[in-house]
Amino acid sequence: MTQLPGVLMAAEIAEQPQVLAGLLADGADPIAEVAAALRKRRTRFVLFAARGTSDHAALYGKYLVELRLGLPAGLVSPSTMTIYGAHPDLTDVLFVAVSQSGRVPRSARLGEGGTRGRRDYDRGDQQPGIAARRRAQYQVDIGAGIERAVAATKTYTAELLALYLLFAGMSQSVGDGLDALPAAAAATLDSAARADELAAVHRGAGRMIVTGRGYAYATAREAALKLMETSYLSAHAFSAADLLHGPMALVDAATPVLVVATPGLGGDAMRPVLDRVAALHAAVLIVGPSAGLPVVTDGIGEALHPLLQILPLQRFAWGLALARGSDPDRPRGLSKITETW
Amino acid sequence: MTQLPGVLMAAEIAEQPQVLAGLLADGADPIAEVAAALRKRRTRFVLFAARGTSDHAALYGKYLVELRLGLPAGLVSPSTMTIYGAHPDLTDVLFVAVSQSGRVPRSARLGEGGTRGRRDYDRGDQQPGIAARRRAQYQVDIGAGIERAVAATKTYTAELLALYLLFAGMSQSVGDGLDALPAAAAATLDSAARADELAAVHRGAGRMIVTGRGYAYATAREAALKLMETSYLSAHAFSAADLLHGPMALVDAATPVLVVATPGLGGDAMRPVLDRVAALHAAVLIVGPSAGLPVVTDGIGEALHPLLQILPLQRFAWGLALARGSDPDRPRGLSKITETW
Repeated sequence: MTQLPGVLMAAEIAEQPQVLAGLLADGADPIAEVAAALRKRRTRFVLFAARGTSDHAALYGKYLVELRLGLPAGLVSPSTMTIYGAHPDLTDVLFVAVSQSGRVPRSARLGEGGTRGRRDYDRGDQQPGIAARRRAQYQVDIGAGIERAVAATKTYTAELLALYLLFAGMSQSVGDGLDALPAAAAATLDSAARADELAAVHRGAGRMIVTGRGYAYATAREAALKLMETSYLSAHAFSAADLLHGPMALVDAATPVLVVATPGLGGDAMRPVLDRVAALHAAVLIVGPSAGLPVVTDGIGEALHPLLQILPLQRFAWGLALARGSDPDRPRGLSKITETW
Repeated sequence: MTQLPGVLMAAEIAEQPQVLAGLLADGADPIAEVAAALRKRRTRFVLFAARGTSDHAALYGKYLVELRLGLPAGLVSPSTMTIYGAHPDLTDVLFVAVSQSGRVPRSARLGEGGTRGRRDYDRGDQQPGIAARRRAQYQVDIGAGIERAVAATKTYTAELLALYLLFAGMSQSVGDGLDALPAAAAATLDSAARADELAAVHRGAGRMIVTGRGYAYATAREAALKLMETSYLSAHAFSAADLLHGPMALVDAATPVLVVATPGLGGDAMRPVLDRVAALHAAVLIVGPSAGLPVVTDGIGEALHPLLQILPLQRFAWGLALARGSDPDRPRGLSKITETW
């Protein structure tokens, strides 16, 4: 039976409002319990371990830790442990492994605590989560169900929500219009056709740049990865501040620039970049309310915007792959899991 | 007076052996004093703040901290402080601002300690270093003198050496054949013509990928930035482990892959990547001893290899810009400093 190109990825993109609603309904209480347990521990620093898409979820988590918990945070360089055998002193460190497969790097055996995603597989010989469950002191299930497309979509937004619930829970600041999130996600996806049109218009681009600042930086990174994975396009993610350094040299009339700018401090900080990019005659695609890639954020706090910003960008990456004649469900050179940490 | 394209950058690339020798002669003792003072303080975690090229130096520093000091480390997200006004608890945190200009982000005022680079300017209205000196408790001068080319080269390797002296000093493990480093840098640059030839061969490439693992990951990141800044080429840096996730889809016969693989654990870990890339018929350019982009590492420990690995890559970026008809000393859209943190 021949499967139409991209049906798996499209279905999983569309499924996200339900996944978020499900995690709020079934996952919020267990995560709140983990957050309460972690509040009783002394945490001086939070260290994340992740790879690929989960690395971008960890980046979002890092912002939450810095802003909500007021603690310094870092992304571990896994190779220091796996290649060089380092054993850093993790006293008072909350070590958080973020993994869509439930598998974790060998480094995570050092972890004091652990958050892990959950992802099932259609290959029966894989046992997701087992290693993580054995090693971590706490686990958080992202409740995204089976993800079949090679390009991760719903596991990403579910990881973001789980991390939000965990860290906002630890700082007792859960809010941000959380209950309205699934409806906002659904409303955002309702305008997905606009993303498809833009993808068709820009299908000939040789490369693209995605930029965002603050919370939106994780969105820019994840969007660039989606574009690279599904369309083999050279997509570069830069924070707005870094873009104004060297990489601005990449911008020209043939290089569309996707600017993530939903309302809030991060979005406001994009203005200098918009000015510079416009002067270089680049096509600018804005991700935001009433923008080319529309995002519905009414009543939703900025800390939750990354869960919405990525939606039209996932759809844009999907549409671009189709417009370029690729099958986003069968990207060349990729398999569902990689074992290398 | 018309200046030949790229003469500034070429001169500063060539100057690096003397800069390194000068820093060893004049800077080692003052840095050892700072290291000794920091040894007396309680440090539980090291947080780096940097942008652009200095961000890659900070990444190298992060590996040193994790491997030599056995401490967790992180790169701060400057926007959490500059945009969102976060005030993380930095008790027992060594805060290290790395800056070629001596200017530091506003966030660095929070710093417990500070390392800063030094870079002079030919514009008289700039006062490098003043802000950093006022705010940091300790300063380390990288002694690179005036850097005139827009693309940073000698300030990068000088930053790496200063960070090595600082953290190896703190862990009382200075060694790694350090005294032989300037000669190894000179010997590596003696083969620079090979990089120019390869640049000419690959001048038509639409994009390139640079990959390295462990200590060499910082090299890959910095090389990609140089390629983007000077040749407007889409250059992607991935750690070997990340490349085996999604971005492997980017690799095809038209995408040269630059693999940083000098002898040691990091270089050994590149073998699976080399196998995968070869199967995709990509042109592979190896950065290593007796390789296409030769690096002389005899007697030099792996921790110092990044100071040598970057040299043929700087020259390759320079040669590529010239071969593509650009002036690497006058990249479009760039100025020497950016004020945005």
